[in-house]
Amino acid sequence: MTTPAPIPAEAQAFRNGMSLLGAAVNLITTDGPAGRHGLTASAVCSVTDTPPTLLVCINRNAFAHDAFVRNAALCVNVLGEEHQALSLSFARYTGEDRFVPEAWGVAATGVPVLKNATVSFDCRIADVQTRGTHSVFFCEVQATSVKDQASALLWFGRGFHTLKAG
Amino acid sequence: MTTPAPIPAEAQAFRNGMSLLGAAVNLITTDGPAGRHGLTASAVCSVTDTPPTLLVCINRNAFAHDAFVRNAALCVNVLGEEHQALSLSFARYTGEDRFVPEAWGVAATGVPVLKNATVSFDCRIADVQTRGTHSVFFCEVQATSVKDQASALLWFGRGFHTLKAG
Repeated sequence: MTTPAPIPAEAQAFRNGMSLLGAAVNLITTDGPAGRHGLTASAVCSVTDTPPTLLVCINRNAFAHDAFVRNAALCVNVLGEEHQALSLSFARYTGEDRFVPEAWGVAATGVPVLKNATVSFDCRIADVQTRGTHSVFFCEVQATSVKDQASALLWFGRGFHTLKAG
Repeated sequence: MTTPAPIPAEAQAFRNGMSLLGAAVNLITTDGPAGRHGLTASAVCSVTDTPPTLLVCINRNAFAHDAFVRNAALCVNVLGEEHQALSLSFARYTGEDRFVPEAWGVAATGVPVLKNATVSFDCRIADVQTRGTHSVFFCEVQATSVKDQASALLWFGRGFHTLKAG
């Protein structure tokens, strides 16, 4: 057994700070030659609308990381108030059984899309950059699907929160 | 008089979708050879903690854009529940008078830091990439400062919302 390396103080301060940057909780999903995978992530942001582009930061040690690279497509499924348990299952587990057929469809790029997501962005991955422990996926949005009467599942202060639009 | 070009349907759909990705509201500030500037932005996300790195997406047409590039340093001031009016003033105006001395200090890199921000990240800009209408600023965090009893000011569904931590 080896003891995990201690976290440097500057990295711990950064993590503490980032826990106070409120963010939407999303399931990032993929399918293709490397199989069907998904994980929970909050590091997603808009880049430009010409052409519609977003980015996602994913830890290179994540089980699904290489599948995103090989499949070259992903869906950002933005979660709503009813999705807390689903969020945890995609944060903790990796099995195919998380994709229960009633809840999931298939987007134009072939990736899984959560039917009742607050909003889903079906994307082709245009570019992947390595930054330390993470990859930054720059993604061109092929289709955006918005739900009526949307709510938000947010992560802030190391806990879940919910909001309603309007 | 010229009529503004219509927004392409795919860009409008993307904007509508992005309005439902809840996000923290931040003031991004700078100072240096190009002067003191700041603007309101929600497109901020964590990249890696080794070394501590975040990114900010800023419209290339923003008044302060070139000052960020020239100064090569910025502070991400994450706003709290009491900062809605401040957020609007940095979204709508560009004057120096927004930096009222009682509310602002100076970070180690020389950029303005909001004294009662929920969290502030003092950064050196390591790399700037152009993506369509926007620049992506990759920033190495020099110092993180966290407030006790933090709250969040969030933007979701084209409106402000607030949350308390803990």
